Amino acid sequence: MSPAQSGPYRGVFPVVPTIFDDAGRLDLDGQRRAVDFMIDAGSQGLCILANFSEQFVLTDEEREQVMQAVLKHVADRVPVIVTTTHFATHIAAERSRRAQDLGAAMVMLMPPYHGATIRVPELAIHEFFKRVSDAIDIPIMIQDAPVAGTPLSAGFLARMAREIEHVSYFKIEVPQAAAKLREVIAQGGEAIVGPWDGEEAITLMADLDAGATGSMTGGGFPDGIRQIIDPYQAGRREEAMDAYQRWLPLINYENRQCGLLAAKALMEEGGVIRCGRPRAPIAPLHPATRAGLIELAKRLDTLVLRWGR
Amino acid sequence: MSPAQSGPYRGVFPVVPTIFDDAGRLDLDGQRRAVDFMIDAGSQGLCILANFSEQFVLTDEEREQVMQAVLKHVADRVPVIVTTTHFATHIAAERSRRAQDLGAAMVMLMPPYHGATIRVPELAIHEFFKRVSDAIDIPIMIQDAPVAGTPLSAGFLARMAREIEHVSYFKIEVPQAAAKLREVIAQGGEAIVGPWDGEEAITLMADLDAGATGSMTGGGFPDGIRQIIDPYQAGRREEAMDAYQRWLPLINYENRQCGLLAAKALMEEGGVIRCGRPRAPIAPLHPATRAGLIELAKRLDTLVLRWGR
Amino acid sequence: MSPAQSGPYRGVFPVVPTIFDDAGRLDLDGQRRAVDFMIDAGSQGLCILANFSEQFVLTDEEREQVMQAVLKHVADRVPVIVTTTHFATHIAAERSRRAQDLGAAMVMLMPPYHGATIRVPELAIHEFFKRVSDAIDIPIMIQDAPVAGTPLSAGFLARMAREIEHVSYFKIEVPQAAAKLREVIAQGGEAIVGPWDGEEAITLMADLDAGATGSMTGGGFPDGIRQIIDPYQAGRREEAMDAYQRWLPLINYENRQCGLLAAKALMEEGGVIRCGRPRAPIAPLHPATRAGLIELAKRLDTLVLRWGR
Amino acid sequence: MSPAQSGPYRGVFPVVPTIFDDAGRLDLDGQRRAVDFMIDAGSQGLCILANFSEQFVLTDEEREQVMQAVLKHVADRVPVIVTTTHFATHIAAERSRRAQDLGAAMVMLMPPYHGATIRVPELAIHEFFKRVSDAIDIPIMIQDAPVAGTPLSAGFLARMAREIEHVSYFKIEVPQAAAKLREVIAQGGEAIVGPWDGEEAITLMADLDAGATGSMTGGGFPDGIRQIIDPYQAGRREEAMDAYQRWLPLINYENRQCGLLAAKALMEEGGVIRCGRPRAPIAPLHPATRAGLIELAKRLDTLVLRWGR
Repeated sequence: MSPAQSGPYRGVFPVVPTIFDDAGRLDLDGQRRAVDFMIDAGSQGLCILANFSEQFVLTDEEREQVMQAVLKHVADRVPVIVTTTHFATHIAAERSRRAQDLGAAMVMLMPPYHGATIRVPELAIHEFFKRVSDAIDIPIMIQDAPVAGTPLSAGFLARMAREIEHVSYFKIEVPQAAAKLREVIAQGGEAIVGPWDGEEAITLMADLDAGATGSMTGGGFPDGIRQIIDPYQAGRREEAMDAYQRWLPLINYENRQCGLLAAKALMEEGGVIRCGRPRAPIAPLHPATRAGLIELAKRLDTLVLRWGR
Repeated sequence: MSPAQSGPYRGVFPVVPTIFDDAGRLDLDGQRRAVDFMIDAGSQGLCILANFSEQFVLTDEEREQVMQAVLKHVADRVPVIVTTTHFATHIAAERSRRAQDLGAAMVMLMPPYHGATIRVPELAIHEFFKRVSDAIDIPIMIQDAPVAGTPLSAGFLARMAREIEHVSYFKIEVPQAAAKLREVIAQGGEAIVGPWDGEEAITLMADLDAGATGSMTGGGFPDGIRQIIDPYQAGRREEAMDAYQRWLPLINYENRQCGLLAAKALMEEGGVIRCGRPRAPIAPLHPATRAGLIELAKRLDTLVLRWGR
Repeated sequence: MSPAQSGPYRGVFPVVPTIFDDAGRLDLDGQRRAVDFMIDAGSQGLCILANFSEQFVLTDEEREQVMQAVLKHVADRVPVIVTTTHFATHIAAERSRRAQDLGAAMVMLMPPYHGATIRVPELAIHEFFKRVSDAIDIPIMIQDAPVAGTPLSAGFLARMAREIEHVSYFKIEVPQAAAKLREVIAQGGEAIVGPWDGEEAITLMADLDAGATGSMTGGGFPDGIRQIIDPYQAGRREEAMDAYQRWLPLINYENRQCGLLAAKALMEEGGVIRCGRPRAPIAPLHPATRAGLIELAKRLDTLVLRWGR
Repeated sequence: MSPAQSGPYRGVFPVVPTIFDDAGRLDLDGQRRAVDFMIDAGSQGLCILANFSEQFVLTDEEREQVMQAVLKHVADRVPVIVTTTHFATHIAAERSRRAQDLGAAMVMLMPPYHGATIRVPELAIHEFFKRVSDAIDIPIMIQDAPVAGTPLSAGFLARMAREIEHVSYFKIEVPQAAAKLREVIAQGGEAIVGPWDGEEAITLMADLDAGATGSMTGGGFPDGIRQIIDPYQAGRREEAMDAYQRWLPLINYENRQCGLLAAKALMEEGGVIRCGRPRAPIAPLHPATRAGLIELAKRLDTLVLRWGR
């Protein structure tokens, strides 16, 4: 394993959007350019096939293609987290093993869920992560987010960290994330190798203050997030706060107005990729919303608007 | 196309459970036996890959295998409905076209949904079904159920029936289903070729009174459901009511205590299949719950307990 | 306290609907007649101000009027459970104390909830019930139902039973209720004085088999529910099963088609009360739905259709 | 009616928190000081009894006390919006009439909802607002927020604006609020007198760009929100953007880490009120969270920290 992948992992690990062409087919060339841009912009790691990657509009075969293409193209420049969530326990385990075999540094999973109503109890969630853990030798990040419709108490997360070998990273994306991070760290102790936040970094300063060591953000401006996290981790909190304030309008606009469409719109605008459209039935960004996003990015000297030009 | 598949379709179209072996792998021999039993038990059609088929624990490849195996094995003995729901519009369309090419009589879909929070608005739902319809020449059944987390008003369903060529069947599985069936029929008129119910037939009498012409039930006792629907459709409502009362304890036990595990437990008990277990993380039936199910089935002269012996 | 109120409480404790006149005002005369009917029909206790009593369409003042009128009129003929749920801990405690002072035998509460999104964590729920318990000397029934949007694990319920003095009854109204009852009893032991079910008795036989000792049903036909519970508790399970099958179509119709409107429609039809309408914005029963309900009740020799004639 | 109350209303109308003493009783003196501060801080109007006022922890009698105290104390200095949501149509109408009689300039309501599951269909929602409108002569603001668990399409909101006399203001608090504001305005035209936003102003710039004319924020720093809205409405958008960026860390911290506790914590810190605690079962702010809030407020020259000193 390369030094880049030895962990513990810290810093900015943005989600890589999945790139489609105008006809909605995978654009693997665009995918590789997106990855190159994101590494150039300072990503300390990457995450693929997350919900912000529109993983739910892919076939299994396309998931495999994206995973292969990205892992091969990254070639250990940075560690890559692969999202391997599936409802079936053994499929999640096999997907995770497959990701490891192809070079993933970590896998990220949510507890099993389907639609609005199909959930499983704590006992089954514990067993789910246990079986995934038993199948691999790399760390597991548990994603704690409303989309799974499964409240995970801080105590339960900490217990899984202590009891399941590879469960050691946590991405907390719930209201009052900072308070939950504090609680998970307090209850899990050293078993919590990576208390991370997510949600486009909208709560980053509070989460860093609470002990977060990494952040899984959108893919459009890792350079901006670095301007916050680097000084913070170097002990220069005031500088971090200033940077956070500077970037917050853009972060907030991504978080509240654009969602998973922000990164691709910025990459399209900056010439990183040719097409920033999502697959139907997700609607493309309204032109006025897109204009607002670009305006905010332009106020900052963000790399994405320059990289491809 | 064989006479069996010419429609309009009426009667009992139970959901075929997906059969696994003890190790959780597809058991296609068991799958075929389950289908044979269900046809022998009087199914007027079948539905595969529904949520009651545990479709959400399958890989894409396994979906294909089940679809091929069942459609080939049924060989036009009865019409088969294939569930082709996927979040991505074009994948749902391609899956539907593929199902038609392999011999499906109809496709069933829910509106796009993912997890607890990812939904699309009415405009996109309309476009979703329009594009599926444009890809095929067989009827579409819209499944209206809480799992999709997408309330579909009677007016909207009726409008899609009128405006989208192949949208013509509706499986209504919401509280007060009978009232909704009445409203859909009133607003949609002749465009509503098949107002159906579902949910294990728990509301069947009320739904028949409201105009339902078909029912998508669990797969364990189509013979019982026939005893209700046949006399009803022949104008012998009192006989139907008596049969409904007779079978209701079992229907209710399936609906409330067992869910998707009932059909396989009955088939296992009756020797139709070797293994009735679900895939993890779904827990197998508690022995006491299973015993209660078998007890109720034994009080009735249900075929499933005799067929395989 | 009268012998009727000494507990432990067992048997049929139906929910008393709140009776309104045609103008939507409280009809306390009708309220008293509803109560008299329900006692004559064999209710072993009553519950007022539950959600099936439309408690959420009342002002605080009307809650007080209904509570006073019913408790005075019942006059210890049977024990009365008063629902005292409120989001604020001290208001729930004060309401509970007030109910006890007026003669309630028990109070029933859900954990605090407001709307779709406002919930509190387990620690606060525990404290909530603790403070209610400290304010009173009568038992508390915790209602475990989807309306509260707060999953309560069997372990947590059992722990509250052991740790909080008056928490001793549990009404379990969730999917797979029987399995949960089994778990609560197994984990809570003697602290679980009353494992009950609810939901109109739709799962009564399974719940009795699981150990339920009481049932909180709709108010329209306590005589029918007695025909199930009495023989069961006397050890004549087969007789109970026959009665359950006989009454199940009506129970199921109430549960799935009518909800809280069933009891009042039956009472109106039978002349117990003058007006069975709910308060707006709840829609009255559709005439066809109402006709279906009456038809099923007529097939049974149910008291409600004779009592007022 | 005073000129202040003649409408159309524009600008900053923050939610007034309900003030309790250490024992959890209403502190009406503190309440009046909170109101005085909020007016001094530049509120162009106020809103009372909203969810951010913890309205769900009050008795009916306390609602009346707060309403009387605030309306009397404000004495037409600014217009006051009174939240009058209740599930029962006629109670919502009577509450609204009562508010008008006491001097409210507007009432704000959500569609009827109770808990996680009790909802009413569009027809009943339309009738609900119609009957409230018929009872009063002042404008109605419809609050469109996730807590009601009732998706309201832009088309339906616009239709109510056109068809129901006093329905003319809309507070949009859903994801992608700006896009929804655009749609409501496009479809409702002149019937949309006040397209407003809410949620602590977290999406204010985007919403102003979309046509919002008012904002219902938290009560802690109306002076800050004025620094954004005033230049915007005067055509100095760049100045507004700068102010938005300056205040966004605090707005965001309120929105994501503190919720309804932020305004009272700031007022307590600044000596406006003696006690900033919520009623149980809502937990008070964690000290670390409170410290983060105060720190951000101190970076800005916010009035709340000076007013009471």
